[in-house]
Amino acid sequence: MRFIEPTILAYIAGFLDGDGSIFFQIVPRSDYKFGFEIRASIAFYQKSNNVEILNWLKEQLGSGYIRHRKTGMSDYTIVGSAEANRVMRLLQPYVFLKKKHVALGLKILEMMGNLKSKEDFLEVCKLVDKFGDINYSKKRKLTYSVVERALASKSLPL
Amino acid sequence: MRFIEPTILAYIAGFLDGDGSIFFQIVPRSDYKFGFEIRASIAFYQKSNNVEILNWLKEQLGSGYIRHRKTGMSDYTIVGSAEANRVMRLLQPYVFLKKKHVALGLKILEMMGNLKSKEDFLEVCKLVDKFGDINYSKKRKLTYSVVERALASKSLPL
Repeated sequence: MRFIEPTILAYIAGFLDGDGSIFFQIVPRSDYKFGFEIRASIAFYQKSNNVEILNWLKEQLGSGYIRHRKTGMSDYTIVGSAEANRVMRLLQPYVFLKKKHVALGLKILEMMGNLKSKEDFLEVCKLVDKFGDINYSKKRKLTYSVVERALASKSLPL
Repeated sequence: MRFIEPTILAYIAGFLDGDGSIFFQIVPRSDYKFGFEIRASIAFYQKSNNVEILNWLKEQLGSGYIRHRKTGMSDYTIVGSAEANRVMRLLQPYVFLKKKHVALGLKILEMMGNLKSKEDFLEVCKLVDKFGDINYSKKRKLTYSVVERALASKSLPL
């Protein structure tokens, strides 16, 4: 990955604080060991007529994709543990409002890299719930409790 | 004014691009030479429970005031030609989405400092209308045409 100027990173951190979002989702995935994926996303939103800024952000950060909604809004979203980890580390020194999000997000990703048991996975799900709380997210249906019930009724190789 | 780190300015520029606003208003003022004030404002918005970021911005930029709305939103607004001029100059190297706004805003303020006639003032009002256009502002009632009509029916010392 190429070097990114500190003022560019600081700008992106400001933009993320002003109008972006970091979030974690628990997604059902039958091909995953515990039956669920923990999906990390970083998203930037903008009216579609300002899409140039999203193209520019994508160019700077070097991953993710841009989507255009029928509502006239577009978003640039970076999905996945490795990329979310990289981008959060880049922006960590500069974010202000999202300091808590970045710290907790990096902790979740670190724990995800060291899963040794179902209990570890459930710990991660608890932190994902906590992440939803600091986002004031009200729409999450797949929470720790759902995963706990699903795992209780399922025998796992661990 | 104290020195502000480039990464701080870049962060503020990103925050402004993401969730802030620069705008000009034509305000009736009988004590002003042409009967109207051209008011420049730079505003940052945030949910009131994130007011810490607005306090921090105010501390960095050293002027303006914070208001709390009953809607649960707060804003930090810098008003006035001198302060808007100073802040736009500070952020100019780092803004992206608001590049056009800053360039036009500084032009308006420069013209305001060199008003020689009613015609000059009307030129400024035209640029304020143009500024409203790049902001997609639809609520402006006091436009160039209103000022033109008002000035036509009034004899001025110039």
